[in-house]
Amino acid sequence: MSRGWIIPIGGRIESASLLARFVELAGSRRAPICVIATASSEADTGPLYESRLRDAGAREVKVLPLSRRGDCDDGDWLALLARAGGVFFTGGNQGRLATVLGGTPVAELIRRRNATEGLVVGGSSAGAAFLPVHMIAGGTEGPTPHSKMVTLAPGLGLIDRAIVDQHFTQRNRLGRLLSAMAYNPSLVGLGVDEDTGAFIGPDDVLEVEGSGGVTVVDPSRVEFSSIDSAQPHEAVALLGLTLHCLVAGTTFDLVRREAHVGDALLARHA
Amino acid sequence: MSRGWIIPIGGRIESASLLARFVELAGSRRAPICVIATASSEADTGPLYESRLRDAGAREVKVLPLSRRGDCDDGDWLALLARAGGVFFTGGNQGRLATVLGGTPVAELIRRRNATEGLVVGGSSAGAAFLPVHMIAGGTEGPTPHSKMVTLAPGLGLIDRAIVDQHFTQRNRLGRLLSAMAYNPSLVGLGVDEDTGAFIGPDDVLEVEGSGGVTVVDPSRVEFSSIDSAQPHEAVALLGLTLHCLVAGTTFDLVRREAHVGDALLARHA
Repeated sequence: MSRGWIIPIGGRIESASLLARFVELAGSRRAPICVIATASSEADTGPLYESRLRDAGAREVKVLPLSRRGDCDDGDWLALLARAGGVFFTGGNQGRLATVLGGTPVAELIRRRNATEGLVVGGSSAGAAFLPVHMIAGGTEGPTPHSKMVTLAPGLGLIDRAIVDQHFTQRNRLGRLLSAMAYNPSLVGLGVDEDTGAFIGPDDVLEVEGSGGVTVVDPSRVEFSSIDSAQPHEAVALLGLTLHCLVAGTTFDLVRREAHVGDALLARHA
Repeated sequence: MSRGWIIPIGGRIESASLLARFVELAGSRRAPICVIATASSEADTGPLYESRLRDAGAREVKVLPLSRRGDCDDGDWLALLARAGGVFFTGGNQGRLATVLGGTPVAELIRRRNATEGLVVGGSSAGAAFLPVHMIAGGTEGPTPHSKMVTLAPGLGLIDRAIVDQHFTQRNRLGRLLSAMAYNPSLVGLGVDEDTGAFIGPDDVLEVEGSGGVTVVDPSRVEFSSIDSAQPHEAVALLGLTLHCLVAGTTFDLVRREAHVGDALLARHA
């Protein structure tokens, strides 16, 4: 089998299409979906997503109570994950996801099954930031990149072509995404708005769902970055980025680094 | 003589180099500098800038009390403007600048003398937004472009190659700048941070001064914009923008649409 879908969602899910499409991709009625609410400090986050995923068409949903690293080699949960069609990480604090799950058998199983057995993995807010190899752990607001503006940490490791930020419009996070890219202009930056999902297929083509936008920053053509010589918190030069503002109906090929407009959106312009 | 410098500043001027360079370009000791504080509702804004410009090296500074359209054909002020080396527009409300000055002899004289006699024209905050042909009159916050996110109006008309937004980092204005460009991807968007100036020379090369950044959004390569068919306040697709984060030591050629790194900044990397 091929790589499974990777689905970062920007938080505050309202559009029914977001969880409905996640459930459909995750196999709907054939395999269970596991919810991991470790990022959240609120006890009802897991049950809330369990209920929302059932409403979205899932037959079997199970919240995995992973609150300590020791929970992450439990045989029952590993057996459940081994037959799951999808895993969904809720919002909260991505630092908590990384510190509890990082390097554990649960994280390794999710990564392996996503890479080779088609396991679908989605996450909202902190759960979205956690999915890539390089995770934005924190930072400050504003659209202009600055030195020391962003804190990076190793994430779950599902995708190394992109770095993900979320609540993107709502929390003014372009600067920290650009700062993350300034250090090493190899990755594509994805800024995912609230109520919006970046559905990244097995072919690494990203499709947008939901009411907001996905801002794609492609540093392929960057000629210069000054972040290595900048003073702490100094504004940083970054020349030659390519920017795409995607909405539902548009796609971005993460391998070819090309944006496309789908036929339905083109037809609205005809 | 050639076109004079055009100098939008993003507000909250703290770096001494900003007004010092404006005064130097405006002819320092040889010609008067006129301050136009029409944008401001506070009576001490004009005198404050008079004092700051004197501190920055100007010999003769005069605040023009233009509070109604009828003030803008006063012979004394026109005579002063006719021999001025520089004009500085303070912050406040750019809508007030446009409604009081638009189409008056004062505005026409400034425009003509900037275009053909080297008159230097600067402005901070609202005064910066007012300078171009197309002025951002208002809008909402956030980095993702949306339909109906920005209100455009005719500005003073000094430059038609660029549209200017200010307090850029501090007020989260990328989305409204992108929205302005989505309507007609012909202009370069300049997002000027606080305490930062975009010094646009007679050759239309932009140099950055101050502590922040100037975000340049170049739509030359835009392949698609959906703003014409978007619902009110719907997120908008805009594919293929080029983005440069400029700081002091970098330049942008508005004619060739090329960003460059100056020798001093390069040397810091050597």
